[in-house]
Order: sequence, then C-alpha cells, then structure tokens
Amino acid sequence: MTITFAPPSASKSELEGAGSFTPKFDAHGLVTAVVTDARDGELLMVAHMNAEALALTIETGVAHYYSRSRGKLWKKGETSGNLQTVTEIRTDCDQDAVWLKVSVAGHDATCHTGRRSCFYRTVHLQDGKANLDITDDHRHFDPDTIYSAS
Amino acid sequence: MTITFAPPSASKSELEGAGSFTPKFDAHGLVTAVVTDARDGELLMVAHMNAEALALTIETGVAHYYSRSRGKLWKKGETSGNLQTVTEIRTDCDQDAVWLKVSVAGHDATCHTGRRSCFYRTVHLQDGKANLDITDDHRHFDPDTIYSAS
Repeated sequence: MTITFAPPSASKSELEGAGSFTPKFDAHGLVTAVVTDARDGELLMVAHMNAEALALTIETGVAHYYSRSRGKLWKKGETSGNLQTVTEIRTDCDQDAVWLKVSVAGHDATCHTGRRSCFYRTVHLQDGKANLDITDDHRHFDPDTIYSAS
Repeated sequence: MTITFAPPSASKSELEGAGSFTPKFDAHGLVTAVVTDARDGELLMVAHMNAEALALTIETGVAHYYSRSRGKLWKKGETSGNLQTVTEIRTDCDQDAVWLKVSVAGHDATCHTGRRSCFYRTVHLQDGKANLDITDDHRHFDPDTIYSAS
C-alpha cells in the first residue's frame, strides 16, 4: 500500500469541498462501503474498509474490504471468483462512507448465499410485526460447493 | 413505537431466511441504513438507525434515523422540508443493514449542503494521492437560509 490518508480537516468547508480525500475512520478504523452494480445501480452489499483496504481498492481498482468477523483484509471474491472491478468511487459529505460502483466477475453474484445481492429480502409490517419476505431467490452458485472447496 | 424486534437467531438459516425481521444492532444499538431514490436508484445518503428509528420508519412510512452527532432520534427533513417517504425496505443477509427506497419531498435534496445526494464527490488517484473532485455542485437550496431559520 502506497497511498496514505491525512486526518480529516477541522474545517467543515475543507471537509465538504474538493481536494485531498481524508476519510473519517471510526473508532475501529473503518469507513462504511456501499456497493452498487455499475450496470444498473442495484445495491449489492454493504461492507467496511480500513485504510489498507481503501488504499488497495483505489490503487488496484479491485474491491478490498476489512472483514469484521474474521478480523482481516478481505479481497472480495477471492474464493468464489466473484471479484469486483471498481468503475467509480465516491464519498459523502463527511467522508465517513464510500460508494463503489462495480462490475462483478464470476457468477455475477455478490452474496455468500449465492444470490446476486445481499439485499434479497423485503421488510413488511403484518399484524403489528415486522416480517421478511424473500424477493430474490435465484442462486447464481451453490454456496456449499463453492466455499467447501476452499 | 409499538413494533419490537426479537434478538437475532443463532441459526444461520433462520437469520438468512424468511420470517421475523430480527435486526442485528451493533454495540451502539445501531444498524446501517442505505438510502436510494425510488425514482432512479441514485444513492442519496448513508445513516444509522436504532430500534426506535427503525420501528418508526416501518410504522409511519417516513424515514427516521438516529443522529450519532446529536445523540438523538432524527426525523430526516424536519427542518429542511425534505422528508423521505419510504416505498420499500430491504435488509441484507446478516440483517445488520437496511436499504430504504424513498421519495424525497421539498427541494428534492438530501444532503445538508443543499445537493441532491451526499455522494457528490468522486475519488481519483493522482500522482500517488487520493483526491476528490466535485461531480454534482447543483444546490437545490441554500443551507444558510434553511438551517439558520430553524
């Protein structure tokens, strides 16, 4: 990793303007990453990035994240083949989130369940309770086969 | 608030299937909310919700968040008039993030800077440094006028 990030400016106008990208990492050293498909804008996943993952993503053009559950750098798709090539990176007004527009290789699937998007369920209010319905149940790959082989 | 949420199931298949919505709140009691425009899918903002904000959003159909900087419930658009009517709510595989598709009232702007989206800047690698360019500089309202009046 060669890119380093300066700490966020104390000036609101500098933070919200053009110039250096100074991501505002949280107490765990992470920013939120929102990932959409460059093809049609579909929301594919939400993940987190530390400085290393963010720098690698910017430098290589391939999405890297920080896995909070595994506690380490995560090159998305390394096992499944569903690598993400980044076509655009944006950040928000306070620079604590990034938006990646990506092209997905392999099975054209992002979720570990084999579905295209991790957001395959809708929330409905029914009899005073919040329930989930599965909106997209198409599996692009069989998770048992893909992940047990690694 | 009348909706309550049961704790997440220890069973991965229950957590990833249909049935009860059991959001996985983090150590601060929050889930991540990704907000897109129901009209064209544009990413408008990323925010956070506690159980109260999430329940109110589901019950009322108007987006509520939890402001980490102000430490309180935040009915988005209450000051600016840019309220968000929710047309669909989704959640992801591990239920620690929600995706709201919304229609924005008022100035059709979500960012406090007056722009349509908080993601108005792109990240570019230039001479080994990550820089920000402003991609959308159209202000739908004047922040100084709108927020100082409140």
